[in-house]
This record gives sequence, C-alpha cells and structure tokens, in this order.
Amino acid sequence: MLHLQSETDARWFDQVDAHLDEVLIDHAHCEKKAAGTALNLIFHYVENRDLCREMTEIVNEELEHFHMVLDLLEKRGIAFRRLKPSQYGRKLNDLVSKQEPQRAVDRLLVAGLIEARSCERFHALAQHVEDAELSEFYASLFESEARHHSTYTRLAKHFASEEQVMSRLDELAALEAQVIAIGEPLARMHS
Amino acid sequence: MLHLQSETDARWFDQVDAHLDEVLIDHAHCEKKAAGTALNLIFHYVENRDLCREMTEIVNEELEHFHMVLDLLEKRGIAFRRLKPSQYGRKLNDLVSKQEPQRAVDRLLVAGLIEARSCERFHALAQHVEDAELSEFYASLFESEARHHSTYTRLAKHFASEEQVMSRLDELAALEAQVIAIGEPLARMHS
Repeated sequence: MLHLQSETDARWFDQVDAHLDEVLIDHAHCEKKAAGTALNLIFHYVENRDLCREMTEIVNEELEHFHMVLDLLEKRGIAFRRLKPSQYGRKLNDLVSKQEPQRAVDRLLVAGLIEARSCERFHALAQHVEDAELSEFYASLFESEARHHSTYTRLAKHFASEEQVMSRLDELAALEAQVIAIGEPLARMHS
Repeated sequence: MLHLQSETDARWFDQVDAHLDEVLIDHAHCEKKAAGTALNLIFHYVENRDLCREMTEIVNEELEHFHMVLDLLEKRGIAFRRLKPSQYGRKLNDLVSKQEPQRAVDRLLVAGLIEARSCERFHALAQHVEDAELSEFYASLFESEARHHSTYTRLAKHFASEEQVMSRLDELAALEAQVIAIGEPLARMHS
C-alpha cells in the first residue's frame, strides 16, 4: 500500500532512544514543511481543481498535526526550537525532473513517498516506545500519512498514464530506500 | 478600524464595470496568495506560538475563500486561469525592512494593510454591483478581512512597542494610499 522498498532498521531506533526530544522537535518541523509542500503544489498547478481541493485538505491537516506536536512538546516540557533539518527531503527533491509534465508527476510522487516513510516510521515508533502517551499519539497519526500517500499517487495520474506513474513510483521508491539506508548522523524523523 | 488613509475612487469602479470577470479571477489568486503569506510567516517566526496559531487560522480561512471564489467563477461560467498579477503587493512588500525585528513588524503590518484594502474594496464592490448574488458574496467576505487586519496589527506588537507599531502603521498606510491612488492599467482587485 505504501510502495516503500525497505523497512526502518535498528540504526534509527538507536538514534530515537538516544535523542528522542530532537526527533519530536524535528517532527513538528516536518508537519510544517508538509503543509508548505502542499501549498506550493496549489501555487504551481492552480488550474487543476481536484489537486487544489486535495492539497487544501492536506494543508489544513498538516497544520493541525503541527500544533498537535507543539502541544505534545509543551506537555513534556521540551522547548521547541529551530533544528538543522535532515538531508532526506532535499535528496528526494533533487530527483524531481525539471521538465513538465514529468516534474508534476515527480513532485507528487516524492511528496507521497515522504508521507509513506513518515507513516512507516510513525507506526514503528508507536510500537517501539514504551511511553503509552507517545505510542498512542503516533498510532493516531499514521493513518493520515497513509491516506496522503494515496492522494499524492492518485493525483500524479492527472499528469501521466497509470503505467508511467507506477513505473516511476517504483524507480523513486528504490532511490528513497537507498537514501534512507545511508541514514544521517543527526537524529531526525527521516534520518 | 482599518487604518486606511483613502477610499476607493471612481477609477476602480470603471475598471470593475469594464472587466468584472478579470477582477473576480484575480480575487481567487489573491486568496491563494494570502494563504501563502500567512504560511510564510509561520516558517519565519516558527518559535512564536501565538503567531503560528493565528496564521494557521488565516491559512485555513483564505484557502476556504479561494475555493468559494472558484465555485462562484464556475457557477458564472468564467474559466479560471493564470493572470498577470497587479503590482500592488510587490510595491508594498518592497517597503518591508531587511532588518529584524523591524522586518517582522513590517511584514505583519503590510499583510494587515492588504487585508484592510481588500476589506474596503469588498465592501465597496458589494454596494456597487447590481448583481444580488455577487453583492451578497462580497458582503459575506469583508468581515473576515477586517478581522485579519486586526490580527496582523496585534501580532506586530510582539516585535515592537505599541507606540512604534502604530506609528509605523501610519507611515505604511500613507504609502499604501499613494500606491493605490496611482493605480494600474490592468483591472485587478487592488488596481
């Protein structure tokens, strides 16, 4: 369903255990960035009414999640602050074609893969942490990430055939699996 | 209440009468841009929780209005399309200081003045047009623009004293009145 070609491994759980607060702060930033991605897609493909409707839903939902994470941080006494972002998003966005309509397909599929990975990580986190509140929080969020992944994949089919989209999704998912396997020294949601 | 230093004159109503469809299409783009402005403010002042909360409300509301205008266009058989934007927003944004914290004050006050002018124009449009549906539509929207103006002005006081904010608002409002008085040849919401 998520089209991911790998599962999160032990390395990431070690980072989470050592730097949970940073991963939670990074999560708030990720929700904000996801809202930005969806709004940018409205700006670039404003004539596509279906896309604008779906992206509006996603902007609203991501901002709601952003505030939910901020509330969680506040409740746990973790000061929200700016963080150096992981390279994950930039590396995936570097894979996007410069030429339309392939650019639209790629932007949507990359956004969808980031949602898929977030979904997979939220699920993994919910199972990994012993803290019941945190576990419930991540279990409550992962459904929407899976839904957003489907929305992005469906919208990509406005710009190319089903076959082209699914074949490109395979390619991009393989590259995403490589990026996430390399990992990053900083503990982040997508490190 | 709106801190504007001029009222819309006959020149704009002539543009509206001659090119109503273009003004309506431009209005849809303005709502989208207003959502973008509010989300950009979240990105730049993300540590300010009050600002993030208020901007989230505004993003949601502007996107809702964007779709309301798109619905209105569809109902009237007007094809939504890209339009060359007016210079109004760019001219006002050129007045924003490059130095923080004055930059924050200016960005908020400029966003607030654009809301104020939109409010004034929506009210003027509601009274000017003979079309009852259109008149009701604009009458229903202008309250939120006035509220957004107040929100932006209030948030500016997070970054400077009340006296500094009100004095800068006076300066910027005088410049806004000059920009709108010069006008533009293209018929737009802020021409």
